[in-house]
Amino acid sequence: MLPDRNFFFRLADAAKAETLPRFRTGIAVDNKQAGGYDPVTEGDQAAEAAIRALITEHFPDHGILGEEHGSIGLDREHIWVIDPIDGTRAFISGVPVWGTLIGFQSGGRAKMGLMDQPFTGERYFADGNKACYKGPEGEKQIKTRACQSLSDAVLFTTSPHIFTADEAKRYGQIQDKVRLFRYGVDCYAYALLAAGHVDLVIESGLKPYDVGALIPIIEQAGGIITTWDGGRPEGAGRIIAAGSKAVHEEALALLSDL
Amino acid sequence: MLPDRNFFFRLADAAKAETLPRFRTGIAVDNKQAGGYDPVTEGDQAAEAAIRALITEHFPDHGILGEEHGSIGLDREHIWVIDPIDGTRAFISGVPVWGTLIGFQSGGRAKMGLMDQPFTGERYFADGNKACYKGPEGEKQIKTRACQSLSDAVLFTTSPHIFTADEAKRYGQIQDKVRLFRYGVDCYAYALLAAGHVDLVIESGLKPYDVGALIPIIEQAGGIITTWDGGRPEGAGRIIAAGSKAVHEEALALLSDL
Repeated sequence: MLPDRNFFFRLADAAKAETLPRFRTGIAVDNKQAGGYDPVTEGDQAAEAAIRALITEHFPDHGILGEEHGSIGLDREHIWVIDPIDGTRAFISGVPVWGTLIGFQSGGRAKMGLMDQPFTGERYFADGNKACYKGPEGEKQIKTRACQSLSDAVLFTTSPHIFTADEAKRYGQIQDKVRLFRYGVDCYAYALLAAGHVDLVIESGLKPYDVGALIPIIEQAGGIITTWDGGRPEGAGRIIAAGSKAVHEEALALLSDL
Repeated sequence: MLPDRNFFFRLADAAKAETLPRFRTGIAVDNKQAGGYDPVTEGDQAAEAAIRALITEHFPDHGILGEEHGSIGLDREHIWVIDPIDGTRAFISGVPVWGTLIGFQSGGRAKMGLMDQPFTGERYFADGNKACYKGPEGEKQIKTRACQSLSDAVLFTTSPHIFTADEAKRYGQIQDKVRLFRYGVDCYAYALLAAGHVDLVIESGLKPYDVGALIPIIEQAGGIITTWDGGRPEGAGRIIAAGSKAVHEEALALLSDL
């Protein structure tokens, strides 16, 4: 038996019960990465535990790849890919552009996914065939925008500082060409791309749980998400997501042009 | 007679009726500034018109300084300072961190102010004595956070690209010292600072209508907002806002240290 929308929404509700009450409370933040700044809130850990408990109860033969509590059964046919709070910096700064990411893969391929933003009440979900939005704007199917060229495109990335010097050069060639670029939006940027408000997201250094839930949302909304060399994105790393083939091709050519 | 909270909220409701229905609709964007990219939505213009109509009806002897429809009576005792959609780039990208800014000055000094984010349903208001929040978290008085040093501070700026080369050097000295920095949040960053989630906002090239509403919200929440040389902020330009005296002093010393 495969999971359905109701089950994904149950997982998101369980995570929300752990994250939202801790948002904007100034709660203490652990320092996961010595020397760097990679905050992990109690909410992050509690939300993943809540999600995993439900998965283990209802789908005991599925594997789980999670950010906070490690991986089990990654050689199994069906694997859940979980990032309980993507955008922890946004979370601890009070900006509601973080999200709970829950992805589902079969045979190594992203099939279903959910991105939930509990403060704004927005939920983006891909059911295997189509991508849908539920939130303040109502409930609707979403589709990416058919932007025809980089010069008309709106580009997002989390921060220019995520790139190595070589990556920054490649990325910079694209930033110089677009109509508008913005920083600082984490997983929320991919959701906006799926809903047709943004044309291009380019990032690097991503982990599989950063994109696992977003791949099916973008693909089933009509968009394209690949690595910088055009390969499948499940392994993460350097990722480019575009709302249209034209923008993806134009950007991909510049990313490999060095 | 001076305006009260009810009147400010009426203004915000009138603006919201023009902005929110146009948010995320992909409506055409005029290009206000030839060569550059300074989008003005229909919502921006319609919202300011709606706000001005109410002010003119109820306070005909007050001056108005607005972003979209020019200024009248700037030599009068009481002046309204309006930015109907601060963060137009966020608005047209679908990110709910733009806001409607309505400030009120007497004798050249900011006295009352309101920042409204209609999509998230958040309203930040300074009544002349205290700053309050109304939104998904309920209704409450807000206060800034007593951060003791830059090394513990969360810093926001809209984009590193807003600075000149000289400004970027000064700003960079601070960014290198803080615990965490984020880009891309416009007026929302000042509201988060007033509510105690963020410690420092540094920007340049601001217009009086970009800060007129935010000054009283920050000051009446216990924060400090000045120009980079420590002067009153009503004239805008280079602006620094801090939640505590310690962080303001430490940052100000670095901003003038070149």
